Amino acid sequence: MEQKIQQLKNLLAEIADLNYISALLGWDQQTYMPSGGAEARGNQMALVGRLAHERGTSVELGNLLDELKPYAATLDPDSDEARLVKVTARDFDKASHVPSSHIVEFTQVTTLAQQAWMEARQNSDFTIFRPHLEKIVELRLEYASYFPDFTHPYDALLDDFEPGMKTADVKMIFEGLRPKLVELIKAIASKPQVDDSFLHQHFDQGKQWKFGEEVITKFGYDWKRGRQDKAAHPFTTEFSLNDVRITTRVDPDFLNPMLFGTMHECGHALYGQGVAPELERTGLERGASLGIHESQSRMWENLVGRSLPFWEYFYPRLLEVFPQFSAVPLKRFYKGINKVKPSFIRVEADEATYNLHIMLRLDMELALMEGKVSVKDLPSVWNAKMQEYLGITPPDDAMGVLQDIHWSGGMIGYFSTYSLGNLVSAQLWEKINQDIPDLDEHIRHGKFEILLGWLRQNVHRHGAKFEPQELMLKVTGSRIDPTAYIRYLKKKFGEIYGL
Amino acid sequence: MEQKIQQLKNLLAEIADLNYISALLGWDQQTYMPSGGAEARGNQMALVGRLAHERGTSVELGNLLDELKPYAATLDPDSDEARLVKVTARDFDKASHVPSSHIVEFTQVTTLAQQAWMEARQNSDFTIFRPHLEKIVELRLEYASYFPDFTHPYDALLDDFEPGMKTADVKMIFEGLRPKLVELIKAIASKPQVDDSFLHQHFDQGKQWKFGEEVITKFGYDWKRGRQDKAAHPFTTEFSLNDVRITTRVDPDFLNPMLFGTMHECGHALYGQGVAPELERTGLERGASLGIHESQSRMWENLVGRSLPFWEYFYPRLLEVFPQFSAVPLKRFYKGINKVKPSFIRVEADEATYNLHIMLRLDMELALMEGKVSVKDLPSVWNAKMQEYLGITPPDDAMGVLQDIHWSGGMIGYFSTYSLGNLVSAQLWEKINQDIPDLDEHIRHGKFEILLGWLRQNVHRHGAKFEPQELMLKVTGSRIDPTAYIRYLKKKFGEIYGL
Repeated sequence: MEQKIQQLKNLLAEIADLNYISALLGWDQQTYMPSGGAEARGNQMALVGRLAHERGTSVELGNLLDELKPYAATLDPDSDEARLVKVTARDFDKASHVPSSHIVEFTQVTTLAQQAWMEARQNSDFTIFRPHLEKIVELRLEYASYFPDFTHPYDALLDDFEPGMKTADVKMIFEGLRPKLVELIKAIASKPQVDDSFLHQHFDQGKQWKFGEEVITKFGYDWKRGRQDKAAHPFTTEFSLNDVRITTRVDPDFLNPMLFGTMHECGHALYGQGVAPELERTGLERGASLGIHESQSRMWENLVGRSLPFWEYFYPRLLEVFPQFSAVPLKRFYKGINKVKPSFIRVEADEATYNLHIMLRLDMELALMEGKVSVKDLPSVWNAKMQEYLGITPPDDAMGVLQDIHWSGGMIGYFSTYSLGNLVSAQLWEKINQDIPDLDEHIRHGKFEILLGWLRQNVHRHGAKFEPQELMLKVTGSRIDPTAYIRYLKKKFGEIYGL
Repeated sequence: MEQKIQQLKNLLAEIADLNYISALLGWDQQTYMPSGGAEARGNQMALVGRLAHERGTSVELGNLLDELKPYAATLDPDSDEARLVKVTARDFDKASHVPSSHIVEFTQVTTLAQQAWMEARQNSDFTIFRPHLEKIVELRLEYASYFPDFTHPYDALLDDFEPGMKTADVKMIFEGLRPKLVELIKAIASKPQVDDSFLHQHFDQGKQWKFGEEVITKFGYDWKRGRQDKAAHPFTTEFSLNDVRITTRVDPDFLNPMLFGTMHECGHALYGQGVAPELERTGLERGASLGIHESQSRMWENLVGRSLPFWEYFYPRLLEVFPQFSAVPLKRFYKGINKVKPSFIRVEADEATYNLHIMLRLDMELALMEGKVSVKDLPSVWNAKMQEYLGITPPDDAMGVLQDIHWSGGMIGYFSTYSLGNLVSAQLWEKINQDIPDLDEHIRHGKFEILLGWLRQNVHRHGAKFEPQELMLKVTGSRIDPTAYIRYLKKKFGEIYGL
């Protein structure tokens, strides 16, 4: 059986390599590729995607899995080998439900849709994007129809990003979260607003960049196994566990995009750099799910990067780099970076309002998949929901329904993972603080090894071995739930706003 | 038959896409990849190389070619379709001699070797690189052994870079060239040396970069279909005819590397950007050979970029950017950039001594392939040859045997093409000046359209349709020979040094 396992690993290594290559094609497209290269890049990505899909659904792989399943059942169910067979079988089964022709059409449709979305957003004209999104919704419904075993058509989509998670679970989690959030935001709104005007000044871009580098170097980002580049829409990607790259965006007149964006992407990258080397090229070298991945990025961005202990250490350094802060005491700075205010753009939202942006998207995705709303009505439904949830109405569709790239890439079912990531980050944080009672002291002294070590040991090294709920049970003793996040928000913003 | 041709093109498109992907993997490796990514990159390049090789030697392709050959014989032999069948058949035949396993091993070995070479050069320690090079020589001999029809083991290697060219041809060309070069260099050495100290000053790197961009923009480099990045060892590569990228190196204390390097790589890139779009993804979208490619880079670097008319236009602009040249009259600057002096580094060599660097490498490659010298002795043999050919001995191996990346990439058989490029550039230049008698006037006014137009019409658009000697016969009426280059050198340096 050792030989069969090796055969399996050989097949999986090739699929992993193709996925890594695909990631490089995407990274280059979003960082350096000149516009002329777009059409050819589409061909190249379609080819690599097809080759990976062919291999991921091959008869050879299927037969090998059938042979290995009984053997895997005899192993420790948490062993690498047992998990390898289990996860591969799950992915094979899922991929085998989908005909190649669907994959090809989906790639073609979304490639064109992304271009249309860019143009639509630029002109704030939803009608440019609308026919593409209609086709995408149709294709996503077709995709869902390949999985009659799922009870809700959205389940099949969600499961691709958050293995094992059901629509009903997410709805229940969000329903527990929403009223508490609304209540908190209301309470905050009744208090005097904090000042964050000092974040909106001119900041030298080179200095911003270097400060970001300094912070994530302290976090433990390994520059020999990664690098940072600029991208309009920052992301993290990997071409190996030893080549995990981040991208960031620098706004010359606003510190936050670089500062918190860099920490956010670094959080993703630390996960990638921390997966056990023996999982490399097996398909288990990915994270457990997008939600778990997001828990890491949000933890470093918010629970660490927007905390007072963090700034007790880093604020003197920031003052050296940007002396214009010398008139701003640490406490005022801390409050400023944690200002809560309903806003239009999800990626710029504060920790309290962020999840309402996600709930809005989940509502709309569910309505689309259930046929309760049609694409043409999305802009008005979006604006009405924004008013309902956040009390504001976008001035145009670029600031509204057109702000995010996801739907143009066919990624319906993805947004929920952002909120799950927030909840998971707080759940993990409570557990970490139980295990490391003096964590704040470490952070206050610019020491992050103990935190990173804990994450490596409990989360990172496992890669995709465990489904998100399994992992959370193992690590924290409970499934994903919103109470830790609510406790975290109430305590933090209670202090900041004097609630 | 139209349908068969279309089938052929579909197969070739996939091979071309794989080759483009491979080029991106290589570009990233040499520009941005962190050191940690090297091993994984080796796997990825090996995979893509194997997939391309499998497709380039497939039974399907072979059968299709057999069916198409009689049809192609009925066509105009210079038509795209006839050439497509001919060139594809040639490549298919050559690739079919090589087992896939060899390709995979070669890719893996050379990927690691490149990292080792970088480290070796950095530390000027040949022993780091030596075992890798030994393996590479072994693999190159194995490769040559797959082609028993070639009379010399070096023929099979040379033919990959310079289709149709034989070792004996190159030796004969070089033997005609060497005595004339030695004589010229001797004559120059007997004259007072020109001053080029003004080129060795501090030059702001950002300003250097911008000046280089300005020059090649004038040349006609299309930035929407390319970009420029930094690389330790500059090169040009393409991921589509619409994404042809150059790299350059900036030395803060010496103007030449950026200046002439940028023009050189731009020369390559203009070739790539000038291939007829209908040849895209057919395998004919490449250049005719490395020698022909090099003729383009050397033409823009030397025949244009080191000419007096060019600087009559650009010198005032250079003075604006670097006012420190204000004390240097144009003529002195012109002489300085054309200073002839034996030196250690090939890429920095002047036009007169450059080819001796190549002859040295050819001697050593032939000796390696003939088993007359072993890898461990290369540093000392190199140094002895440098003394023999150029009268100087490198102070260390970084300045000697470790200076070039080529061998670490397995590219034995490649260097000769640099000299062929020089010769071809002068041959083409004579023809161009016959066809455009007022070319100097155009250049003197910063107008390069007429030159680029001629090159596009006579050289670029044909891509790889013609073998180098065929192309030269078509364009100039004669095969590659060194006389035009010797005439060019004698005239130019005769004037500069008053011979």
